[in-house]
Amino acid sequence: MASPPSTLTTGHAVRLAARSKALTGPTAGLAPSYLQANLIVLPSQYAADFRLLCARNPVPCPLLAESSRPGAFRSLRSYVYPPDNTNAPSPSPRPLVLAKDIDLRTDAPAYRVFRDGHLVAPTDTDPTDITAAWHATDHVAFLIGCSFSFDAALHTAGLAPRHVAQNRNVPMYRAARTPLLPAGVFVGGVHVVSMRPYRASEIERVRAVTRRFGAAHGEPLAWGWGAVQALGIKDMQCPEWGDAPLTGGGSRVFGEGVEEDGEKYVPVFWGCGVTPQEAVVCANLSGTVMGHAPGCMVVLDVTDEEVFAVKGM
Amino acid sequence: MASPPSTLTTGHAVRLAARSKALTGPTAGLAPSYLQANLIVLPSQYAADFRLLCARNPVPCPLLAESSRPGAFRSLRSYVYPPDNTNAPSPSPRPLVLAKDIDLRTDAPAYRVFRDGHLVAPTDTDPTDITAAWHATDHVAFLIGCSFSFDAALHTAGLAPRHVAQNRNVPMYRAARTPLLPAGVFVGGVHVVSMRPYRASEIERVRAVTRRFGAAHGEPLAWGWGAVQALGIKDMQCPEWGDAPLTGGGSRVFGEGVEEDGEKYVPVFWGCGVTPQEAVVCANLSGTVMGHAPGCMVVLDVTDEEVFAVKGM
Repeated sequence: MASPPSTLTTGHAVRLAARSKALTGPTAGLAPSYLQANLIVLPSQYAADFRLLCARNPVPCPLLAESSRPGAFRSLRSYVYPPDNTNAPSPSPRPLVLAKDIDLRTDAPAYRVFRDGHLVAPTDTDPTDITAAWHATDHVAFLIGCSFSFDAALHTAGLAPRHVAQNRNVPMYRAARTPLLPAGVFVGGVHVVSMRPYRASEIERVRAVTRRFGAAHGEPLAWGWGAVQALGIKDMQCPEWGDAPLTGGGSRVFGEGVEEDGEKYVPVFWGCGVTPQEAVVCANLSGTVMGHAPGCMVVLDVTDEEVFAVKGM
Repeated sequence: MASPPSTLTTGHAVRLAARSKALTGPTAGLAPSYLQANLIVLPSQYAADFRLLCARNPVPCPLLAESSRPGAFRSLRSYVYPPDNTNAPSPSPRPLVLAKDIDLRTDAPAYRVFRDGHLVAPTDTDPTDITAAWHATDHVAFLIGCSFSFDAALHTAGLAPRHVAQNRNVPMYRAARTPLLPAGVFVGGVHVVSMRPYRASEIERVRAVTRRFGAAHGEPLAWGWGAVQALGIKDMQCPEWGDAPLTGGGSRVFGEGVEEDGEKYVPVFWGCGVTPQEAVVCANLSGTVMGHAPGCMVVLDVTDEEVFAVKGM
C-alpha cells in the first residue's frame, strides 16, 4: 500500500493519485473539507430498485449521484442541491456539479468486486482498478454520502469523536432489529450504524452539530445504553466493521456504568454508509457488483461548506 | 354531519363544499382520482424540525407541500415533482401546482385543534373551520400524502383492499418497536402502520402495484405474521385507529393459521399518514397545533395520474 502523498489537498488531486496508482490506501484525512463518497456499482436491471431503496432510507443511504446513463463512468447525475439558508428548498434549484475529470473505474484507491454474490476481488482482479470488470453499457455507479464530513464539524465544535483522537476506525455495528424499509429486490436489509461515545450532557450539542449534514447521515438515529438492545446490536465490544471502541484511557472495557475520568459515557449511533453495501450483498444479486474497498472513498470536487453551508472545517 | 353531495367530483368542488360547510364528514370516495392529503399545522418555531422529520422518514411522512411562508393559508410551496418515466429525475424539474383557490383554514371538512398538547377542538371551537385559531404570521401548514391513491390502484389491479369492499376504515396500529428516525424536537415517535390482508401468493403483485406511489407511502414496509411481533404491534384484533379487521366472511377472528375460504391470509403493512400526527402529539409542543379530523382530508387539484403516472384509476 503506497503511503499518501502530502500534496493531496483537493478531491481532484486524490482522484488523480488513485488513477495513477500512486495512492492505493484509505482516504481518511486526505483533501480535508472535500466531500468523500461511498461507491456502489450495479447491473442496470437493479438500478431502479436501488434508487428506491435510497429514497425510502435516506438516513443510512443518502444518494449523492449516479452514472448519467447506464455504462457512464465519466459523467454524473447529481442529486445534491445547494444549501438554502431559509431551510426550505427554492422551487427549482440546480444540483451541484460534484466532480469534473472523474473516472469511476479508477478514481477510488481500491475496489471490491463481487460476482453472483461472492467476493472475487482482490483475489482475481487488480484491486485498484475496475476498468476490466466495468460493463460498457450496463453498469450504473451510485455515490452515497459519508460521515467524514460531520466528524470534522464535531472536531471544530470541540466534540472531536474519540476514534479520530485515537487514530482508529469508527466502530460499526449491524442493527439487527432495525430493518431497512424494503424496495423491490432489496428485502431483508438492516441498518448498519456507526458509534461515537459522548457524555449524556453533550448529546443535544452533538445532535445540533450533525443535524445539518443531511447528505452525510445527519443527526444520530439513537443514543444511550437502552438503544443497544433496541437497535439489536449483539456485542458493543465486537463491532462487525471498523475497530473495537476503547475508553478515553485506552481500555477495551467501554460499557454501561463504566466511569472514565469520573464521567459516564453513552453510545451515540448514526446511520452508516456500509448499510447500502450490506443491502446489496444480502440481496444476492446476479452478475458483477462492485464498490470501493473499505475506507478507500471517491473524493469529489465540492467542499462541505458548499454542500452543507458550514464554515471553519 | 352533512352527507356528501354527489356533485363532488373534483378536488376543488370538495374544498368549496367544505368551505361552505355543506360537507363536514369524511372524504373517502369523493372526487375519485384526485390527490387527498393529511394536514398538520404548527407554530413556525417547529417547522424546520418537522420538515427534517419528513425528510428522514419519507415513507410514513411523505411531505407534499407546505405554506409558502409562515402564516400563509392560500398559497402552497409544492414538493411534488412530475413523474419521470426514465425512473431518474431530470436535473431541474418544476414542482406541480397542487391547488389553486385553496384556504387551508376552511377547506378540510373538519379539524382538530390542540393547545399545549391537549385536544381542545371540537370541544371549544367550531370543528369545521380553524380561521379563528390560525395565527396570521406564525402558523405553517404541512400536507402529507395519503394511501387513498394506491387503494384505488389495488382495486384496478384486481387486488381490492378488504376494508374497502367491507365499507370499513383501514385498521391502523402503533408499531412500538419501529421508531421514527428522530429530528430536532421530534424524538421518541414510532411508525403508525395501516394493514391490508392478502394471500401470500399475492404479495409480490401488491408490492409492485403500490411501489410507484412514492408520495403516498409506496410499497409495504413489512408483511407476514412474523412482522406483527417485529413491528411491535400489541393486538391485531384491536387497532389503535380505524376499524378492527374482519375476515373475508365477516368474522372478527383474523389471525395466524386461520383459513378463509380454504386460504390463509397474511397481514401486509404500509406506512401511514397518522405517523406524523402522532409524532407531533408525542413531542408535546407548546402553542396551538392543528390538523384535519380523521378521514376528513384536504383534496387537491392534481390527480393520481399526474402525480404517479398511473392510468385507469
